[in-house]
Amino acid sequence: MNISALGEFELIARLTAGLTSRADIGLGVGDDCAILDLGNDQLLLATCDSQVEGIHFTLRTSTPEQIGRKALAINLSDIAAMGGVPRYALVSLILPPQLPVAVLDSIYAGLRLEAEQYATAIVGGNIASSGKSDQLTIDITLLGTVERGQAIRRDGAQVGDILCVTGSLGDSAAGLHTLLHPDPSYPQEVQEFLRTIHRTPRPRIHEGRVLSGLGSQVVTAMLDISDGLSGDLGHLCERSHVGARLDLVRLPLSPELHIVAVSVSHDPFQWALHGGEDYELLFTVSPGNEYRVIEAVQSTTGTRVTVIGSILPPDEGMRLLYPDRREDRLAVESWDHLKR
Amino acid sequence: MNISALGEFELIARLTAGLTSRADIGLGVGDDCAILDLGNDQLLLATCDSQVEGIHFTLRTSTPEQIGRKALAINLSDIAAMGGVPRYALVSLILPPQLPVAVLDSIYAGLRLEAEQYATAIVGGNIASSGKSDQLTIDITLLGTVERGQAIRRDGAQVGDILCVTGSLGDSAAGLHTLLHPDPSYPQEVQEFLRTIHRTPRPRIHEGRVLSGLGSQVVTAMLDISDGLSGDLGHLCERSHVGARLDLVRLPLSPELHIVAVSVSHDPFQWALHGGEDYELLFTVSPGNEYRVIEAVQSTTGTRVTVIGSILPPDEGMRLLYPDRREDRLAVESWDHLKR
Repeated sequence: MNISALGEFELIARLTAGLTSRADIGLGVGDDCAILDLGNDQLLLATCDSQVEGIHFTLRTSTPEQIGRKALAINLSDIAAMGGVPRYALVSLILPPQLPVAVLDSIYAGLRLEAEQYATAIVGGNIASSGKSDQLTIDITLLGTVERGQAIRRDGAQVGDILCVTGSLGDSAAGLHTLLHPDPSYPQEVQEFLRTIHRTPRPRIHEGRVLSGLGSQVVTAMLDISDGLSGDLGHLCERSHVGARLDLVRLPLSPELHIVAVSVSHDPFQWALHGGEDYELLFTVSPGNEYRVIEAVQSTTGTRVTVIGSILPPDEGMRLLYPDRREDRLAVESWDHLKR
Repeated sequence: MNISALGEFELIARLTAGLTSRADIGLGVGDDCAILDLGNDQLLLATCDSQVEGIHFTLRTSTPEQIGRKALAINLSDIAAMGGVPRYALVSLILPPQLPVAVLDSIYAGLRLEAEQYATAIVGGNIASSGKSDQLTIDITLLGTVERGQAIRRDGAQVGDILCVTGSLGDSAAGLHTLLHPDPSYPQEVQEFLRTIHRTPRPRIHEGRVLSGLGSQVVTAMLDISDGLSGDLGHLCERSHVGARLDLVRLPLSPELHIVAVSVSHDPFQWALHGGEDYELLFTVSPGNEYRVIEAVQSTTGTRVTVIGSILPPDEGMRLLYPDRREDRLAVESWDHLKR
C-alpha cells in the first residue's frame, strides 16, 4: 500500500501514535503548534511547515519574493492560531543546483521582509541540494512564545459555544482560480485583490494576540484555516469531541469573490467552504461573549469578525444550515497533502 | 549565475548578511545551533538539518530504519557540538505519493528509536507531497537546552590552544566507499564496522555534556565534524579568527580504516582529513588542560579523545605537519552541499 492511499491525516495518526508525553510538553503533535514548558512564565510554541514547488507554489504564478513571504506567513499563521508571539525562524532550503542566484536572493528578501514585519528573527537554517530533481522546497520552523495559561488550543470548544472567523473566506481559492485560468474579463482590481490574498496571505498575529488576551474562558478553541473551512472545522470538532453547525448565509464573502464567482459561474460558497489557504482564524467563543470578542478584535486591529455557526453535541456531527433553513450534513472536501 | 557556482557557504553568507541581532538572541546563524535567551537559567538551542534522497542517502545503501535514525542523529550531533541536552524534535517529511507505507513506517520507527535513546520527544512536524519528484526528504529541527554560560561555540579558540577530537576519523567515508564499491575481499566484520558508522553515526551527546561541564575556560571552542575534518577545522578557524596546525601522525585512525585503505590502495589519511560525516567532536582546550579533559571524557563515556594539533595565529592559516616534520598548507577538500 502506498501512502497516498492512506492520506495525510491517517498517516500522521499512524506515525505518531503513542509518542512520549512528558511534564515539559504542554502539547505535542496535533495542534497548530507544540507547547513546550521550559519552566518560565513564557511557554514556547514550535511549528513547522513547508512549501514545495509544483505542489504549493510555482514560479509561474508567484514572484520569488512572494514565495518567500508566503513560506514564512503560513508558519506565522500557526503561531497566530495559538494566540502567540512569533520570535525565531529556522529556514531550511532544498535547492536545485541550477537555480539562479537572483531568484534565491528574491525569495530570501521576501522571507526577511515578512520576518521583519512580525518582529521575527531568522536565527538558523540549512541549505541542501535537490540534486537531479529540479524542485525547490522551503521548510521553515518557527518558534514563538505565549504567556502560561493563555495558549488557545483546538480542543477546548464546548457545546453551545459560538463559532467565529476573522476576515473573509474563499478569496485565496478564487485568487488561485484567476491565476490558473486567466481571463481578461475579470476586472483588474478584483483579480489583484484576490491574487494578493492567495500569494501573500496576512497572518493574523495581532488578532490572535487580542483573542488569547481575552482568556480561555472567553475564547475556548482556535485554529487557522489552511486546509479549508470544512476540513479545519473538522479538525476542531475532532479534537474538541464536538459537532458544529455552519450557517451558510453568514459566511463572510468579499465582493471580489462574488464578482469572480459570477463571472466564471462558480458557486462562491464552494470556495468559502472548501477552498484552502485562507489563513484566517477560526475560533469558538463561550455563549454571550461573542459581541465583546468581535468588538475587541475589530477595534484593536480593524479586522472584521463574523459569527458563522455554533458548536453542537458530538453525535450531531458537522451540519450546514442553508438559507431556506434546510439542514444537511457538511461534507469535508478540503486539501489533503498526499491525496492530491 | 547559478547557485552551484557560488557554493553553500558563500551563499549562506550572502543570504544572511546583516540579519537582526537582538538581546534575546545569544547567537544566530553561523554555529552548530542558534542560542536563544528566553530569560531563564537554561538557554534554548535550535538547529535544523535535512537528508535528501539521492544526495545524503539512498534506499539501496541503507535500510529505511537506518535512514530515520541518521536523520535525527545528525541533528543530535549539532546539539552535542554546543555541549547541550537534546529535548524536542519537529519532523518535516516530503514524501513521494507512491512511497510504500511500510517504508515510511520503518523510517519513522528509526526516528523514534534514536529519539528515545537520547530522551528527545517528537513534538511536531509536517507531511507534504513531493508530487512528480520521487525524492524523499527528511528535514528535522531539534531544540535543546544548555546552562547559561556553558554553551561551547565555534568562535572561542585562542592561539596556543590544543586541538582535540573524539573517536576516530574517516570511518564513515571508508564505510561509504565499501557500500559504493562492494568487494568480497573486505573482511566481513571490518566492512560491517565501517558501514555501521556511516549508516548510523553515534551523536556525541554525552561527550559534549562532559566538555561543556568543564567550562569555557577549559574547552574554548567546539563543532562537530560533518563536512570533513579539513573543512570543519576551517569553519572553527574562520569563526575564531585563528590558524591551526594538524599533526598528521596523530590523527586517530581505526584499524578497520587501515585494512580497507590497504585493500583498495586508498590513502587512509585522505579519508581522515577530508571524508565527511564523522560526527565526532572537534574542540580546543586551553594549554595545560588537555590531559584533564581527555581523562574526564574517557573515564565518563569510554570514548577516546586524541590531541591532533594546536591553534596558531591567524596569519599562519591552516597547516599540516607530516611525519617527516615537513609542514605544508592544509587544503580544504570537504563536502559542499551545492558544489557536488
